[in-house]
Amino acid sequence: MKKLQIVKIGGNVIDNGIALENFLNDFSKIEDLKILIHGGGKLATDLAKRLGVSQAMVNGRRITDEETLKITTMVYAGGINKQIVASLQSKTINAIGLSGADGNAIQTKRREAVDIDFGFVGDVFDKSVNVDLISTFLELGITPVFSAITHDGNGQLLNTNADTIASALAVALSKRYEVQLNYCFEKKGVLMNSEDSNSVIQEITKTKYKQLLQDGIVSKGMIPKLDNAFAAIQNGAQSVVILQATDLLNKIQKDEHIGTTLIA
Amino acid sequence: MKKLQIVKIGGNVIDNGIALENFLNDFSKIEDLKILIHGGGKLATDLAKRLGVSQAMVNGRRITDEETLKITTMVYAGGINKQIVASLQSKTINAIGLSGADGNAIQTKRREAVDIDFGFVGDVFDKSVNVDLISTFLELGITPVFSAITHDGNGQLLNTNADTIASALAVALSKRYEVQLNYCFEKKGVLMNSEDSNSVIQEITKTKYKQLLQDGIVSKGMIPKLDNAFAAIQNGAQSVVILQATDLLNKIQKDEHIGTTLIA
Repeated sequence: MKKLQIVKIGGNVIDNGIALENFLNDFSKIEDLKILIHGGGKLATDLAKRLGVSQAMVNGRRITDEETLKITTMVYAGGINKQIVASLQSKTINAIGLSGADGNAIQTKRREAVDIDFGFVGDVFDKSVNVDLISTFLELGITPVFSAITHDGNGQLLNTNADTIASALAVALSKRYEVQLNYCFEKKGVLMNSEDSNSVIQEITKTKYKQLLQDGIVSKGMIPKLDNAFAAIQNGAQSVVILQATDLLNKIQKDEHIGTTLIA
Repeated sequence: MKKLQIVKIGGNVIDNGIALENFLNDFSKIEDLKILIHGGGKLATDLAKRLGVSQAMVNGRRITDEETLKITTMVYAGGINKQIVASLQSKTINAIGLSGADGNAIQTKRREAVDIDFGFVGDVFDKSVNVDLISTFLELGITPVFSAITHDGNGQLLNTNADTIASALAVALSKRYEVQLNYCFEKKGVLMNSEDSNSVIQEITKTKYKQLLQDGIVSKGMIPKLDNAFAAIQNGAQSVVILQATDLLNKIQKDEHIGTTLIA
């Protein structure tokens, strides 16, 4: 099986023009087949503020009302996605920007309102990922660049967590490719001590993860990220790493002991 | 050669949710291979207003400064494009939304500032259209949906006239397909008398066009539209029609004497 690098890039890099450009330079040098998934950073929140649209948050998650969905679709699937694609094209990477609606690449199910109504938020399910379409692109030498906007197949766009999309892509595509999933963010990995940027935990097993949760070392936004990462490593991905964006190329090219590696 | 319907849909339909949905229903019933190109309507102007970004216009054309380019990219390539794609997916059309940057589908050249600096505006050239990519999509049963955002190949997104994109696609793809180009807008065709919505001119030859220009019957925004239409019919398109959006399906299915047909 061919190797496929799936790279998720988070908000902090998106928000910084120079950091993003440096990252895309590195990404363009990956020789394996590759897919990029990007978050939206603060740009959607900033635009909502400028437009006077208030953003309800529950448990650190944005409630996506109709107006917020319009804003995130514009910012993620339009502004950011097309800028990334144009930049990659200039680096001779034949990138194509995709939402889940495009080519029915990723179909999700609107989350049912149980205690909280998250609004227009889509959750992935077993057959969410259109493996045929994405494989066709990869075989044609086209590099998919996903924003975190999906659809329900009935004409409704939905907001979906970018980490979850990355995980779902990794699992689905692991049937055809040897998948390495790389969660890039602003820190060097999962930290033992949040005050010490060098206290990277090199490996996390499922058992160790439970311990880290109990000890409160992993908390808040890191919990869903690690849940997504474990879902990928336990369901087909060959390797899953959480690492700093600037370390990506070193990690892939030299396979150094960089970042936090998950053990199934 | 297979028949290919290229359909341009303008602002008035985009601005009206019900009209857009009805149009997409009709578009989805076209049995030939098909491509949709959409303008942006008033949504970009509205968003710019809400954000307090002033819009300079010269000769009826928007000057695209950096802030305006960001807005049009968000609105055209993000908000409108993805909503259209999601809607078509719900009608079992496997649509894919594309800017010119995606897959390097349409590369343009930034317009040089001679008397007026139009800003980030891209003009098509001879090899602007990536015929291989678009043909591949069509053969895969995928329906491209283009917004009017292109790129220069050096990382710069550019605003491009949607009528011009439709014309360029028609010309380039006429080498592989029998192309019918349909410019859909709010009127029944080119009118002899702008006060009489039924005074449709059935056919316009190049000679007649010159006369209509001299007589002031064709003016303002209709001039670039007709220039684009003539460029298509004189350079390979099998037929070019200017018609009302609600007449599209009748025109294609019954080939009735609908709209204004251009004669090379």
